[in-house]
Amino acid sequence: MTTRDPLVVFTPSGKRGNFPIGTPLLQAARSLGVDIDAVCGGRGLCGRCQVLVAEGEFAKHGVVSSSASLSPFSEPEQRFSRRSPLAAGRRLSCSARVEADVVIDVPASSQVHRQVVRKEAETHAIEIYPLVRLHYVQVKQPDMHDPSGDLRRLYDSLQSEWGLTDLATDLSVLQMLQPALRAGAWAVTVAVHAGKQIIGVWPGLHENAYGLAVDIGSTTIAAHLCDLVSGDVVASAGVMNPQIRFGEDLMSRVSYSMMNPGGAALMTAAVREALSGLALDVAKSAGISHEDILEATIVGNPIMHHLVLGIDPVELGGAPFALATDMSMTLRANVIDFKLHRNARIYVLPCIAGHVGADAAGMVLAERPDLDDAMTLLVDVGTNAEIVLGNRDRLVACSSPTGPAFEGAQISCGQRAAPGAIERVRIDRETLEPRFKVIGSDLWSDEAGFAEATEATGITGICGSGIIEIIAEMYLAGIINQDGVLDGRLAARSPRIVANGRTFAYLLSAGAEPKQGAGASRGAVEMKITQTDVRAIQLAKAALYAGIALLMERLGIDHVDRIRLAGAFGSHIDVKYATILGMVPDCDLAQVRSAGNAAGTGARIALLDSNSRGVIEALVRRIEKVETAIEPRFQQHFVEAMAIPHKTATYAHLRKVVDLPPPKDSTSQTETRGRRPRRTEPIKAG
Amino acid sequence: MTTRDPLVVFTPSGKRGNFPIGTPLLQAARSLGVDIDAVCGGRGLCGRCQVLVAEGEFAKHGVVSSSASLSPFSEPEQRFSRRSPLAAGRRLSCSARVEADVVIDVPASSQVHRQVVRKEAETHAIEIYPLVRLHYVQVKQPDMHDPSGDLRRLYDSLQSEWGLTDLATDLSVLQMLQPALRAGAWAVTVAVHAGKQIIGVWPGLHENAYGLAVDIGSTTIAAHLCDLVSGDVVASAGVMNPQIRFGEDLMSRVSYSMMNPGGAALMTAAVREALSGLALDVAKSAGISHEDILEATIVGNPIMHHLVLGIDPVELGGAPFALATDMSMTLRANVIDFKLHRNARIYVLPCIAGHVGADAAGMVLAERPDLDDAMTLLVDVGTNAEIVLGNRDRLVACSSPTGPAFEGAQISCGQRAAPGAIERVRIDRETLEPRFKVIGSDLWSDEAGFAEATEATGITGICGSGIIEIIAEMYLAGIINQDGVLDGRLAARSPRIVANGRTFAYLLSAGAEPKQGAGASRGAVEMKITQTDVRAIQLAKAALYAGIALLMERLGIDHVDRIRLAGAFGSHIDVKYATILGMVPDCDLAQVRSAGNAAGTGARIALLDSNSRGVIEALVRRIEKVETAIEPRFQQHFVEAMAIPHKTATYAHLRKVVDLPPPKDSTSQTETRGRRPRRTEPIKAG
Repeated sequence: MTTRDPLVVFTPSGKRGNFPIGTPLLQAARSLGVDIDAVCGGRGLCGRCQVLVAEGEFAKHGVVSSSASLSPFSEPEQRFSRRSPLAAGRRLSCSARVEADVVIDVPASSQVHRQVVRKEAETHAIEIYPLVRLHYVQVKQPDMHDPSGDLRRLYDSLQSEWGLTDLATDLSVLQMLQPALRAGAWAVTVAVHAGKQIIGVWPGLHENAYGLAVDIGSTTIAAHLCDLVSGDVVASAGVMNPQIRFGEDLMSRVSYSMMNPGGAALMTAAVREALSGLALDVAKSAGISHEDILEATIVGNPIMHHLVLGIDPVELGGAPFALATDMSMTLRANVIDFKLHRNARIYVLPCIAGHVGADAAGMVLAERPDLDDAMTLLVDVGTNAEIVLGNRDRLVACSSPTGPAFEGAQISCGQRAAPGAIERVRIDRETLEPRFKVIGSDLWSDEAGFAEATEATGITGICGSGIIEIIAEMYLAGIINQDGVLDGRLAARSPRIVANGRTFAYLLSAGAEPKQGAGASRGAVEMKITQTDVRAIQLAKAALYAGIALLMERLGIDHVDRIRLAGAFGSHIDVKYATILGMVPDCDLAQVRSAGNAAGTGARIALLDSNSRGVIEALVRRIEKVETAIEPRFQQHFVEAMAIPHKTATYAHLRKVVDLPPPKDSTSQTETRGRRPRRTEPIKAG
Repeated sequence: MTTRDPLVVFTPSGKRGNFPIGTPLLQAARSLGVDIDAVCGGRGLCGRCQVLVAEGEFAKHGVVSSSASLSPFSEPEQRFSRRSPLAAGRRLSCSARVEADVVIDVPASSQVHRQVVRKEAETHAIEIYPLVRLHYVQVKQPDMHDPSGDLRRLYDSLQSEWGLTDLATDLSVLQMLQPALRAGAWAVTVAVHAGKQIIGVWPGLHENAYGLAVDIGSTTIAAHLCDLVSGDVVASAGVMNPQIRFGEDLMSRVSYSMMNPGGAALMTAAVREALSGLALDVAKSAGISHEDILEATIVGNPIMHHLVLGIDPVELGGAPFALATDMSMTLRANVIDFKLHRNARIYVLPCIAGHVGADAAGMVLAERPDLDDAMTLLVDVGTNAEIVLGNRDRLVACSSPTGPAFEGAQISCGQRAAPGAIERVRIDRETLEPRFKVIGSDLWSDEAGFAEATEATGITGICGSGIIEIIAEMYLAGIINQDGVLDGRLAARSPRIVANGRTFAYLLSAGAEPKQGAGASRGAVEMKITQTDVRAIQLAKAALYAGIALLMERLGIDHVDRIRLAGAFGSHIDVKYATILGMVPDCDLAQVRSAGNAAGTGARIALLDSNSRGVIEALVRRIEKVETAIEPRFQQHFVEAMAIPHKTATYAHLRKVVDLPPPKDSTSQTETRGRRPRRTEPIKAG
């Protein structure tokens, strides 16, 4: 042995250095820039700084490491162990001191900036850089020989122990500071927002810090409660958006506001009340107090965004569709009556354009199309479809007025996705007999036990994904042609084809369907797809496709590499049927996927990784906005996209997607009309 | 004539430059850094940028100037003149253009940073640098070809027209922005706080911006409404502090809080309600809306400071007298329920120490002892006297527990300064007969018409300044000796000297005083000064003097150059009597003066000159705090200061102050005891 200081190697970072005998491991780690957490500031109280001593010979480092390389189990470690036993080989790095060469493993759970791996296979992990952090500090007692306020001495401690400077403090924290310091025997934990503002104070050590990621949809509000330290989602919940009583879809809510003085304020109050209720619910199910929720992030489409902020959305109801603001906002939660911790802050993601909201920004943050060369199409279908297209070079976005047909509205038997709604449909190509599944049961309608399984809910209507499938299946079975016209001649072949005024309809479920059994009386309503229903879906999908086509044209591309369908609709839809219907452009089917609740995921990323806020703010500014309402080409794309499958899709691609029967119309015609118009016609200046 | 560009000379600044023909004067002024106001951004709307064309030959500048040197009266000037006629020779500098050499006078009223001259002769003028400023801007209309939020376009205009960057906006402004922009035909006025936060928005041109300077005393709350542009005080008002019902003096209010759970909250609510009422009152009397009050500044002693902020003052009730905070604070007015403009901000001046509050900081800001070589003593007498001593080199401060005797409490006939209270007293040295004045009348009690003049109020008691005078006059008349003992032997000479238990008293007013006439029945109460009253005043003045002596000792001085007595008591007191009584140290009587409501003046300075906030924050940190409670020398000074005049005052000085009779005690003894103890005795370490 030479007389050199012991070598300490930290894994997995590989950072290493020599330290005098007696150096606490935490101190060694910090001087090397190794990321180890310690809410209590290294006092052996919080146990966050646990490390594992490696045992054995590490040739690579030239080190023999063992538990004997460290000082014996200390008094604080014994005290901590009595409260919460330390696993074998684990030490508190604030207490364990270097005695000889040693290899120290820092587990992910002890890192401040760990990562959260997301379920979706290919997506990026979330880095944990919460904006609100807890700091435990010991504060000097007041001294008449050197008078100073308690707050100043708190600042002094936060500066010396945590390096925090230029702090400010919420008034209510100041109001609680003196009792907290005395109750905590001059030790308190403070919550600091953005390293600058003290928003909470608790006597002694306080370790609960939670955040809430909120996605305000026009139908559903979803919230995910996250541990701001681990990044884990500890509870999730969703409620119906209570604004539904003012109008089912977005535009009817804007109309409500226009027609009723004070209407916007009523809708604002309704959604805010729902948010606070949701916060209480998730807190309760996680077994925490809602007062431990220190921050929330919010996404929503522009109208939801404006209404929750108390901004009348009337300007979004007509051209030029001016947002009050497109910028992100950081506010106190209580300015929107959001009952979390009394000084909790909220971050509202930026909007992209008048109809492309903070929800679309959340989707972009969740999917990060800008990180890849692959041309990615992101689609969130609602009353308006929000569409983002691009890759690392360029991003464009627009919204397309699909109307509410995809959400089941304006369809004779349509309904929202809810238990009892038909969500999957197959039609026998020969007999034209249907079978289907309803939400709430895994059985097909022709399987044994279906009647019993659906007895509770009944069969109440057809939801968006069900409508997509039934129209596509009707096409595949030859019930409708490419132009969407119901073939009345089939009435001769099947009782499912019935006259309906001057046109025909497909009878999905008769009033007294024998298959549903005696007990299924609630479900025994007549359900049919009319010619008008088919037209409504054609209009919706043509609008969606036209928006996409406009963006592709803007980028000068005729092919996308990846498609992500976001939102509830995107999660339930079978991408194969979406392709058959011609909702989205040609794409390798393996690359068409649901993005889940991408907007909500974006809110969660913005919550956990504060650096991501700057990222999305910059990205949103970079995105080129396309306003479909003033693009003369939109109408042309729209008309061209009415056919099923849309006329720009090549038949060859469609054959890859599905076992496709020969089209009833002339195949050659489809092929001809399938040429992209912009190839043959120059784009006229608008 | 050469072909050079015309020369423009601005007076009084003397700034000059050559500008091409056609240059607007405002633009020329700005390029030279000449300070000209223009709320409307140079659109001829606000008329703030008026200048005067000089007529004649200006040899010094080599310029012949006349109205012909400028472009003819413009369309905007004619329009403005119809609303508000321009005086002869006046032009709007935004509209008038340079045609030839010209001399332009910028009147003070057209400067952004003008000065407000204060009434007090020698004090510094207040520079006007309000933190909240109004900016009129034209905002680009929304454009579907380039979608952006209204707020972003507002920011763009504020940046290009006013150079404002990195702005943030209060949520309620955002809520009002869209209707305001449309009502104002895309022109709005915004109020910007500290150049960074938009706190208000109005359609079109809005020119009202007011601020409120508030001094929360334990007895009275005073408020001055100031025009943030001119700096003028447009209205003032005062109300009783409603906390009086919880305790007359400070310590009884702290006791109330200690004894009654929720007591502090009741006192907080009471003072906050009074503040809002006061704001409404001053706004009404100035004929403005309280919503045009965009900022307020607040001073108060530490207990008032804590209570208005909602901080329980319990820690200030006992050692170590820890303030929750000594630092200044900038808050939203609504966090203390202060009903001004909904987004108004408040600035609370810093405190100096546990018993030396933001009121003392205000006094320091008003008097600025740090700007001078002269050694200045600032005293604000209340239940505690707040004392600041020093000059440009060094400042020290303490508070001294005078108790409420100077405010008329604990004196048998004492009362607060209010109509009906005796405030001036003279005693005939021969007959020992008194004459006096009461608040509300200018007549002495022996003048004709006194009875009628005081009939309405009656004679209800003796206020602080009256007590000072009567004790001093009793000394000068030989009724009490240097030790404050009433000379009972004088009963033989005058019916005014009466037995009072085991001691004596001086009868100021008998129950049926013939002088007061038949109508003065309300005033015909017996009023006498007892031995106990004399002792109470001796204790109070000794405490005050001991605090001053401690600070003088700390600075190693035995003489002060100037004395300023602040607060209501300081305004009413006759400095001659204060000197006779030995409340303050030896000083040239011409240099002893009332500072008026210095704390309130400090609040006004902080309101109008935002730069002064940094000044007082830095000054407060520089001030050395002396805690009288732990200074062993305090007790010694206190005992030594009991005598009248205090024994450290030289008789020679006293003779300069007043036509002094030979002392009843031995003069030589007074001279001997008049030496400052610290000269002969070394100071012992505490």
